Amino acid sequence: MPDFDLKKYLAERKQMVDEALENTFPEPAGLQKTVLEASRYSLFAGGKRLRPILCLAASEVVGGTTDVAMPAACALEMIHTYSLIHDDLPAMDNDDFRRGKPTNHKVFGEGMAVLAGDALLTEAFEFAASTRLGGTLTPDKLLLVIRILVRASGYRGMIGGQVIDLESENRSVDIATVEYMHIHKTGALLSASLEIGAVLGGGSNEQVSTLTRYGHHLGLAFQITDDLLDVEGDAEVMGKQPGSDAAKNKKTYPALLGLAKSKEAAREHVDAALDALTPFGDSAEPLRAVARYLLVRRA
Amino acid sequence: MPDFDLKKYLAERKQMVDEALENTFPEPAGLQKTVLEASRYSLFAGGKRLRPILCLAASEVVGGTTDVAMPAACALEMIHTYSLIHDDLPAMDNDDFRRGKPTNHKVFGEGMAVLAGDALLTEAFEFAASTRLGGTLTPDKLLLVIRILVRASGYRGMIGGQVIDLESENRSVDIATVEYMHIHKTGALLSASLEIGAVLGGGSNEQVSTLTRYGHHLGLAFQITDDLLDVEGDAEVMGKQPGSDAAKNKKTYPALLGLAKSKEAAREHVDAALDALTPFGDSAEPLRAVARYLLVRRA
Repeated sequence: MPDFDLKKYLAERKQMVDEALENTFPEPAGLQKTVLEASRYSLFAGGKRLRPILCLAASEVVGGTTDVAMPAACALEMIHTYSLIHDDLPAMDNDDFRRGKPTNHKVFGEGMAVLAGDALLTEAFEFAASTRLGGTLTPDKLLLVIRILVRASGYRGMIGGQVIDLESENRSVDIATVEYMHIHKTGALLSASLEIGAVLGGGSNEQVSTLTRYGHHLGLAFQITDDLLDVEGDAEVMGKQPGSDAAKNKKTYPALLGLAKSKEAAREHVDAALDALTPFGDSAEPLRAVARYLLVRRA
Repeated sequence: MPDFDLKKYLAERKQMVDEALENTFPEPAGLQKTVLEASRYSLFAGGKRLRPILCLAASEVVGGTTDVAMPAACALEMIHTYSLIHDDLPAMDNDDFRRGKPTNHKVFGEGMAVLAGDALLTEAFEFAASTRLGGTLTPDKLLLVIRILVRASGYRGMIGGQVIDLESENRSVDIATVEYMHIHKTGALLSASLEIGAVLGGGSNEQVSTLTRYGHHLGLAFQITDDLLDVEGDAEVMGKQPGSDAAKNKKTYPALLGLAKSKEAAREHVDAALDALTPFGDSAEPLRAVARYLLVRRA
């Protein structure tokens, strides 16, 4: 599929995920109205839906459907969203804007932002434990997905990475620590998106671990190219000013490795991600296109 | 069992729960050390373990074991602990001390306290999804327990109650709103403790709903008597000064109903809790003793 249209694919899949979230995430009502409004504010703040899209794609690569993976895909996006709300808090990264909009606590206040994050995290496990959209999954598989979600998002994964980020502020750290941080902070949930999709789609153990490996390298390539954009990116295309990492004294790949070595590392991880897809045929073309895109991304 | 020794029972059960948590909650190690230290600090800060104890008791009342309910009992305590850490944050109740010790954010900083709460909540679902301590549970039952936990702790339960608490500050509210708040903020997880214990112990649907009803009334009696202690309690026995609710302008039962009517309401809920236990024999004696104790509690 040399003519694979990644842009169209991502737009269609984003809409599919948006609709699933819109139809299943609870409507603000009653005395808990505000916390659901706050949750929805961030859940529908223009996210790219990368994790759910990867999850659905992994299910298809191993011969499954998008339907069977959709509740877990929604759960992944809810967990990602909760992590952004809590990360933006004044006690953490103290960010006032995200994707051009005021962050959750700037609109709803800090207390409500903490609760909205808590609510999204909690409800994610309802989605993961649910068969309402999928229908045909065995309870064993749902439990396995819940355990993968916990591992990827808890102290062994995303939270563990955020802890390292928090503790690295104003401290000198080496490249190994930075890589360890990224593998946990963003990589774990990205890999889990692939792993969960492959499990739900009925993949063999080998297929599941191969796709998880793809996710691992994709996550690192994503982070490195993100760091590179902050140095070399075009403000107009990105919709934000580059240079914010340097201003915040963030530990980035370019800062620690230099530009040339960072670009080399990004290419190596994209190659390794593509290599992991070798056993799969045309059905893996979306995943290949996503990996290749990272080397030419401008936003 | 007129000679049932509640004090001894609670002390033994607390130790049993403490040991299970100590043996299964991850040890602080590696780069995520701090967040596990922060989680453990609050998890082992001297809690009474009321929710796990009720969960284990409910399992026994319907003929189950304590072993089968222990992982979920630990999950309930982890969720309770996370809620205390987040509630104590400056953006919420802004408490510097809890049970005579500095609150989590006073020791570890606000950012780490948010993450420790997040980690406890996330890991609770690992415990609930796990059979490592129980062994013989079907995946269906574990999924059911997870859904009960989500409902009780998410926006439909505890978080919903906390939202109402947050929004009621410096605002006049009626007794119906206060009761609704308590039913959600503390009642939902208490009821869920009974419900989950009964499910895991193999109770019939009727037994499960009867014990859940006990939990509902126990939760309200617990809250009302807690409010009463803050008016009439003895500082020396309680280990803290009474009057803090009034000082904080908290919406309490005595403030809204007066002392006499509050005491009457507490008695009515204890009676209703005891009434729910009528179908059960001697095995429900611990639950009866807990309910009766609320009317004579001094701390």
